[in-house]
Amino acid sequence: MDVMEAVRTRRSVRKYSPRPIPEDVLAEMREALRCAPSACNNQPWHFVLVVDPDRRRELVETACGKWSWMLDAPLIVVACGLDGLAYQRMGGSGSSMDVDVAIALDHLTLAAVARGLGTCWIGAFDEVAAKKVLGVPETVKIVAMTPLGYPAAADLNRPLEPDKRKDPSEIFSIDRYAGAE
Amino acid sequence: MDVMEAVRTRRSVRKYSPRPIPEDVLAEMREALRCAPSACNNQPWHFVLVVDPDRRRELVETACGKWSWMLDAPLIVVACGLDGLAYQRMGGSGSSMDVDVAIALDHLTLAAVARGLGTCWIGAFDEVAAKKVLGVPETVKIVAMTPLGYPAAADLNRPLEPDKRKDPSEIFSIDRYAGAE
Repeated sequence: MDVMEAVRTRRSVRKYSPRPIPEDVLAEMREALRCAPSACNNQPWHFVLVVDPDRRRELVETACGKWSWMLDAPLIVVACGLDGLAYQRMGGSGSSMDVDVAIALDHLTLAAVARGLGTCWIGAFDEVAAKKVLGVPETVKIVAMTPLGYPAAADLNRPLEPDKRKDPSEIFSIDRYAGAE
Repeated sequence: MDVMEAVRTRRSVRKYSPRPIPEDVLAEMREALRCAPSACNNQPWHFVLVVDPDRRRELVETACGKWSWMLDAPLIVVACGLDGLAYQRMGGSGSSMDVDVAIALDHLTLAAVARGLGTCWIGAFDEVAAKKVLGVPETVKIVAMTPLGYPAAADLNRPLEPDKRKDPSEIFSIDRYAGAE
């Protein structure tokens, strides 16, 4: 599938089929994460692939507001960032960690669309609880997570959402910043 | 071009042809940025498309370590984030701004590959200087930037880099975190 078709048809999938993901497709999804660029190629990331049903349930029930729809997917990808490995920006304005991890996970979300898989960026979770369930060290940040699986028929059949994005005039300017403050 | 081919062939392009980007291709690149998802669909971003040669030169000379190769591309995309519009994470651990802006810019980098265009994530720049050149308000953050243009022949001809990414065993674990601390 062409990249722009993936960009245009990607949407947040919240209804999944329990259909397993074939190993060759999963390998491609891991490769999409692994190939992603990062500042200075530091790759300050680690991905926990949560497949065990009990572990997934514990994660969702304790950290994700009991969004049980996440459990229908056979896999939850938990994207972690290691600040100590990340590029430290000039002027003390933090590291590249969030950006790097987001690049990798965005690679995954688009690669998923091209193979008929759905994802849903999850940024609203109790990080302390999630880290406890997965044994993530204190020094490591969970930047985002997503279920990964085939959309349920009910999801495939829902009409495409109308364009909910801002008008180009709001988000682009030429040569000089002319956006909101 | 298939998403995975874009993922696998994307690389940081540091030699550009001055060949202009046709308007329909540019429109597609803007659409790739605009269609990107963000936490709560807040779209806390604004993109300055720097096309004026003098403005580009001023930006690069004052903020980008005089990386004059950036000037060969006909356009520099400066990706700005608005923290006030971004989703504020639970537990006071900052906002989704960096992640959201990175998602949009990653969409652009992959869409660019599919149309034969090159990009190069620039995270190392003097943000204060860049904001001054572009009139970016103090409350707005420049998260990253990239030149956008056709790779020069010299770039197209260079051999594909060997795989410089970490081994999968370093970056993936199953059910429980087993990465670096």
